[in-house]
Amino acid sequence: MAESWVNPAESLGADLHLELTGPGSKRAVLMRALREAVRSGRLAPGTRLPPYRSLAADLGIARNTAADAYAELVAEGWLTARQGSGTRVAAQQVAPTSPVRRQRTPDHSHRPTYDLVQGRPDPSAFPRGAWLAAARRALTVASHDVFGPGDPHGRAELREALAGYLARVRGVRTSPRRIVICSGVAHGLRLMAAVTGGRRGWAVEAYGLPFHRALLADAGVHTVPLPVDEHGARVGELGRLGAVLLTPAHQFPTGGPLGPERRAAVVDWARSTGGLVLEDDYDGEFRYDRRPVGAVQSLDPDRVVLMGSVSKSLSPTLRIGWMVLPERLVDDVVAAKGEREQWSSATEQLTLAEFIASGAYDRHVRRMRQRHRRRRDQLVAVLAERAPRVRVTGIAAGLHAVLELPPGSERAVVKAAAWQGLAVEGLADFRHPESTDLPAGDGLVVGYATPPEHAYAGALDALCRALPPAQP
Amino acid sequence: MAESWVNPAESLGADLHLELTGPGSKRAVLMRALREAVRSGRLAPGTRLPPYRSLAADLGIARNTAADAYAELVAEGWLTARQGSGTRVAAQQVAPTSPVRRQRTPDHSHRPTYDLVQGRPDPSAFPRGAWLAAARRALTVASHDVFGPGDPHGRAELREALAGYLARVRGVRTSPRRIVICSGVAHGLRLMAAVTGGRRGWAVEAYGLPFHRALLADAGVHTVPLPVDEHGARVGELGRLGAVLLTPAHQFPTGGPLGPERRAAVVDWARSTGGLVLEDDYDGEFRYDRRPVGAVQSLDPDRVVLMGSVSKSLSPTLRIGWMVLPERLVDDVVAAKGEREQWSSATEQLTLAEFIASGAYDRHVRRMRQRHRRRRDQLVAVLAERAPRVRVTGIAAGLHAVLELPPGSERAVVKAAAWQGLAVEGLADFRHPESTDLPAGDGLVVGYATPPEHAYAGALDALCRALPPAQP
Repeated sequence: MAESWVNPAESLGADLHLELTGPGSKRAVLMRALREAVRSGRLAPGTRLPPYRSLAADLGIARNTAADAYAELVAEGWLTARQGSGTRVAAQQVAPTSPVRRQRTPDHSHRPTYDLVQGRPDPSAFPRGAWLAAARRALTVASHDVFGPGDPHGRAELREALAGYLARVRGVRTSPRRIVICSGVAHGLRLMAAVTGGRRGWAVEAYGLPFHRALLADAGVHTVPLPVDEHGARVGELGRLGAVLLTPAHQFPTGGPLGPERRAAVVDWARSTGGLVLEDDYDGEFRYDRRPVGAVQSLDPDRVVLMGSVSKSLSPTLRIGWMVLPERLVDDVVAAKGEREQWSSATEQLTLAEFIASGAYDRHVRRMRQRHRRRRDQLVAVLAERAPRVRVTGIAAGLHAVLELPPGSERAVVKAAAWQGLAVEGLADFRHPESTDLPAGDGLVVGYATPPEHAYAGALDALCRALPPAQP
Repeated sequence: MAESWVNPAESLGADLHLELTGPGSKRAVLMRALREAVRSGRLAPGTRLPPYRSLAADLGIARNTAADAYAELVAEGWLTARQGSGTRVAAQQVAPTSPVRRQRTPDHSHRPTYDLVQGRPDPSAFPRGAWLAAARRALTVASHDVFGPGDPHGRAELREALAGYLARVRGVRTSPRRIVICSGVAHGLRLMAAVTGGRRGWAVEAYGLPFHRALLADAGVHTVPLPVDEHGARVGELGRLGAVLLTPAHQFPTGGPLGPERRAAVVDWARSTGGLVLEDDYDGEFRYDRRPVGAVQSLDPDRVVLMGSVSKSLSPTLRIGWMVLPERLVDDVVAAKGEREQWSSATEQLTLAEFIASGAYDRHVRRMRQRHRRRRDQLVAVLAERAPRVRVTGIAAGLHAVLELPPGSERAVVKAAAWQGLAVEGLADFRHPESTDLPAGDGLVVGYATPPEHAYAGALDALCRALPPAQP
């Protein structure tokens, strides 16, 4: 067997790849290789080199040879050696010849000062301490198979925690087996498009996320807009379409819950035509009034696919969402995800399971609900004082409100906001391009959960300055 | 404004969704709703209910009403109340009517006793303590934007750490800007297929992962097999193909590194035809002899795309990999990933960046290298004693070896292994279906890194019993 380049006694240093080729003594060859690595920029200034004993063992050369090479390169100024800090690459006195270090990352200095764009919880509210504690508990007791190839169905621990949580909080009727973990609602929509083929076209709400419409179009699903009024989408005319995508808890973005008659009607439609109801439960946990609005899924778990995620309640960074499926679709959706889990980290799935099971998720959602309600109240109060003609709607739930604007003024207000350093979206951004129905008129979609606490008052002030003056 | 259903003073309990409808007093309505939630199985036995004060505040009813409803349901046996443990759903004495709890998860009791399938590091070797410590350090100092929507390019901290690490250990020449984070090599291949369109067809090695060939076919890329010998793939006849996918560090699965002349030749081909070299660096860190084999990428960073991941070195569970790209492809690949980061968790990207920067990744790789080498030596020694006619190849690197078998015996040996409770793959599983080239003949691909420590000797014993007898 070949001699090994790893010396077990020396083996816990840093790794260094060097090609020892060309003429000369071993010391000369090693010095040339190290100089070349520094000159080319491959070894950056400050990089710590392995101890000479490790390097000698790795390369199969005498320790003295490695030690001498280091010492000479220190003398030449390529390396520095300091007691306790080891041998490092010196601060650059030789211009690197490699072009690759000259790239600059793009300049982000033109960001707006204030951000009221919907759909993003304030990132400073992430419960770091509680999350890390859950990670520690979860990983300490986890079985080894967590670190194996993974199951596209999702970790059983998380599916179990979600089945209990969604039943308790959203009235969902399901079992862990019927839940499939995905990376978020967008991923869930792609999977449903792949599984159903989207042959007959899908109905979507006339107002909704352009991002969702675009991904459905990419997946070959033709979308047909449904008019929206104060009772949510008008679901009376679905005909032979294959599916309908709804936001029943809180129509996105206009803000009303789907009315009880329409809930019953859409489920009847699904039963009689074999169609599917896709329920995007994007902010079902954030209601501020007393009437709880349960999931449509509870009316018929065999006809409704509920999709949700932690993106609004915790953070979009985790890439964890869920699909609650009719039994007959589970295997197809798991197969559509691919051979192995390629999306959500299993360690974070376990952490979320522990976060839910320990009650930390409930506590976080409650804390956020209080914070959002306080912000909503502040928004309403400021507008009542400074822009009394502006009507605010969609405020019973969610993380955003809609400000109704005088007809024809929306684009001017969005532009005026930009001049105030405020990023905010107009309703037009959300309208389906084929929609002829304009019940919501002109308006602003104000995401009041987005700014950090210290910037909220400033954001509201900038908003008021952008709105049409109170006295015409 | 409507009264709120959240009472701030009571707000840190569990959430519970109940529909209070129908005739009767508030207490009767609440009791009916709770009974129904338990009867339907929506509230599982043992589920902890919110304190009656929280529930009363949530539902906007008097505290006494909620307390009375709890007390009566305890008396009826639906709930239990114990000091310090709160009010919980009682162990089921009423059969649930919901069908959803009757599902059973599939039975996995027929797993093999021993596992020598390649490609999966022993999950029990995951460095839980060091990983958790890195997570704590990373999340404690992270800026808030980590918890925002995310950048499909990948976290700058991780791209910076990888640029330094890959330069130092694999000789890669790049900058953080040219690195794009993906969920693994499979994801990287999909992105490259999307970006290049795969119009002209790609060359792949005649032996390789069927999983990769399948995903390329799904993406519309026609693959052409390249013959493989002891110097790796024969890259002489690439002609007008659009790209060539290689495993230069350690041909997968036959085991030799790509020879120096072929490295130069494939880069020349790429320069003269505008083709791309896709370098799957799947186990470049695990070499046991003294000759380091650097990345082909270093020969021409503008023609070679290097793809790697932590799946073999740390765990496939993290879903973190990287692509080192020519500058001209960076923006296209980032765009192909989609509008936001939908794959890798940003918190785990930060944790990995800290894990690398702190030296913990180097230490882990070294420890694993020692362990793999010890296992490889044990495999070779056991075979020399018990199956001296079996030649072992591809052992200078990686996490697997190839055992050459007498012609025509491969299927029988894989079957005999299954009878011994041993999962192991034959070379035929990896052969391109259109390949007419059979240089590797019959053989077994033995993943010696897969079993946990305690099961390795048993796995080797089962392997020897499955091999053809020493005396024919």
